Amino acid sequence: MNKIVREKNPLVHCITNYVTVNDVANAILAVGGSPVMADDINEVAEITAIANALVINIGTLNERTIKSMEKAGVTANSKNIPVILDPVGVGVSNLRNKTVEKLLETVKFAAIRGNLSEMAFCAGKNSATRGVDSNSTDEKFSAAEVAKIVAEKYSCVAIITGAVDIVTDGKKFAQIKNGVAAMGKITGTGCMLSGILGAYIGAIEDKFSAAVSAVASMGIAGEISFEKYSEVGTGSLHIGIIDALSKIDDKIISARGKIFYD
Amino acid sequence: MNKIVREKNPLVHCITNYVTVNDVANAILAVGGSPVMADDINEVAEITAIANALVINIGTLNERTIKSMEKAGVTANSKNIPVILDPVGVGVSNLRNKTVEKLLETVKFAAIRGNLSEMAFCAGKNSATRGVDSNSTDEKFSAAEVAKIVAEKYSCVAIITGAVDIVTDGKKFAQIKNGVAAMGKITGTGCMLSGILGAYIGAIEDKFSAAVSAVASMGIAGEISFEKYSEVGTGSLHIGIIDALSKIDDKIISARGKIFYD
Amino acid sequence: MNKIVREKNPLVHCITNYVTVNDVANAILAVGGSPVMADDINEVAEITAIANALVINIGTLNERTIKSMEKAGVTANSKNIPVILDPVGVGVSNLRNKTVEKLLETVKFAAIRGNLSEMAFCAGKNSATRGVDSNSTDEKFSAAEVAKIVAEKYSCVAIITGAVDIVTDGKKFAQIKNGVAAMGKITGTGCMLSGILGAYIGAIEDKFSAAVSAVASMGIAGEISFEKYSEVGTGSLHIGIIDALSKIDDKIISARGKIFYD
Repeated sequence: MNKIVREKNPLVHCITNYVTVNDVANAILAVGGSPVMADDINEVAEITAIANALVINIGTLNERTIKSMEKAGVTANSKNIPVILDPVGVGVSNLRNKTVEKLLETVKFAAIRGNLSEMAFCAGKNSATRGVDSNSTDEKFSAAEVAKIVAEKYSCVAIITGAVDIVTDGKKFAQIKNGVAAMGKITGTGCMLSGILGAYIGAIEDKFSAAVSAVASMGIAGEISFEKYSEVGTGSLHIGIIDALSKIDDKIISARGKIFYD
Repeated sequence: MNKIVREKNPLVHCITNYVTVNDVANAILAVGGSPVMADDINEVAEITAIANALVINIGTLNERTIKSMEKAGVTANSKNIPVILDPVGVGVSNLRNKTVEKLLETVKFAAIRGNLSEMAFCAGKNSATRGVDSNSTDEKFSAAEVAKIVAEKYSCVAIITGAVDIVTDGKKFAQIKNGVAAMGKITGTGCMLSGILGAYIGAIEDKFSAAVSAVASMGIAGEISFEKYSEVGTGSLHIGIIDALSKIDDKIISARGKIFYD
Repeated sequence: MNKIVREKNPLVHCITNYVTVNDVANAILAVGGSPVMADDINEVAEITAIANALVINIGTLNERTIKSMEKAGVTANSKNIPVILDPVGVGVSNLRNKTVEKLLETVKFAAIRGNLSEMAFCAGKNSATRGVDSNSTDEKFSAAEVAKIVAEKYSCVAIITGAVDIVTDGKKFAQIKNGVAAMGKITGTGCMLSGILGAYIGAIEDKFSAAVSAVASMGIAGEISFEKYSEVGTGSLHIGIIDALSKIDDKIISARGKIFYD
């Protein structure tokens, strides 16, 4: 799968937050895509139109960029360009809730990725969220159930990241057990994964398999970096993840991927 | 002190500049806090309300975010959530001057951190500033005097960073002689410290002691990284600071802290 | 040349994109300048007025910042402060095209730097661009021809970066054969160079020679980092470039520079 990404070099238009945008761009480059960041409403349609995928990440949304997200999303749909949603921190504020609801209504997403509480919101199983990095829900629904609901409700690939990552299109179901807890000590591993999902889904027709590979790539990169830098600290762990992503290939994914299909 | 931060894992809402925001987030995570960046006026009150501290950094302020800073600050005050101000570059433009004056009027700050010229402005001892990283004042007032004025005028903890860092609440006074000059060759060490102050003050009731520990943590992290990377360059020095922050603990602070109380 | 930059420590005002802004700031610091990032229309004139150079980079332009770019540019001209333009992604959207056309009409630039397709646009030899990192044109014009047209049309130093970098003021002409292709796998090497150009041109009167040194500095930094980190990955390559820039001096530039004058 990664080979296809590197060969096709998909252009990934990201409307994303200013906290992790540099990492997102470098992660996309690392796995073989080309990032383009643009968020002015007067140009997003043109940029999306030439892209192979659009990634919408609401991490630092504002009134101006929300409109750009909608316009870019609608444009992508009209041109059959896959759109990935990262509903960062949804559940934390009414603005995020309303934005995500509106986006889910007006844009057809190829994939939605979040932690359990964010995805529970998308599933309509709202629950309180503490911060944007938390991963708690009311525990009435398992991650697998939430993912299935999201996938079916929006006819998309749903990806829930956590101790175990879940990918499903509603029919096929995969658990990915790569990654290390220390990745939560770096901001942006979720955002980077959403960017990488844009590269994989922008290059590969089978979106479910593309998402599984993207999720495994990120988890494996985290493991490789952790093996090298766990004693050094999170600054190096951060850089090491980009390093590992830039060296990832299908052989490494085969050898290290802990992917379980149900 | 750092142990308490890691146990309490305070949520720190930052309205901060887009130059160093990624480092601020990673520094907060490194010392044991959880960052959340959000600056739209329609959500800042909700975000601040669930946070343990609010950090306002005016580095790349604009008309839109200035209003958000005010709203978040007022909300924090109404809920007894401590607010930290980093008046980046105040003195350089009327916009910065007016913004800081307005913030100081409308928001009660738990702590204010800046270099000498920025803090001289807050003290009402205005002086020309050259750029945002400079540290000159008219030299009529020592850093200790300026810090005392700020602490008393705003009933806050005043922190002036420079060759020697100063922390005072107007009664208690500490000098911290950690850190290295090379930290000035990386953008964002001041912003990172302001973020860390949010984590420490968000977790620890004794704000003066919290600030002293935060300042020492940053200085020690700079030293540790410099010992390792001074010959390598400022890119590695930058990463090494995050590394060292992620490994900091009270034992290291005790062993290496050069903290002098008057 | 670099010695002069380190001695003069020019203040470089950047209105730049939020993707690579941290790297731009750290690159400017690394070569001996002082960066200041500010983009609100109510302060840009004051900031520019105290700067030694202004760098305008349209990477993530928006309606608000476009106005700030114009105002800062006009202010710089009125005070004889050199302005550098990085027309990122021009050709990709009408907004970028119109913005660059307007800037070229209203602001006199000391230097313009871009890849071949961006510079072809500035030369009036428009051609389709794919993404912001591409480097294709209709091939009817060589990079040398395009650079000459830009330099003469705007009486500026034109810099085209690619496999071979070109610097010309319309009369003098240099090719710089430093750098490695892997630099294209990191976002921001072009933006960093534009920032460094601000530092060199802000410190050195002979703008052509200043630009040649800046371009060589960046290319050499890329090579040094690549020698160290090619097997490690692009995360380390990225950090290594800042490391190398912070250690660059005229001796290294003399020893490693592959500069050819026509």
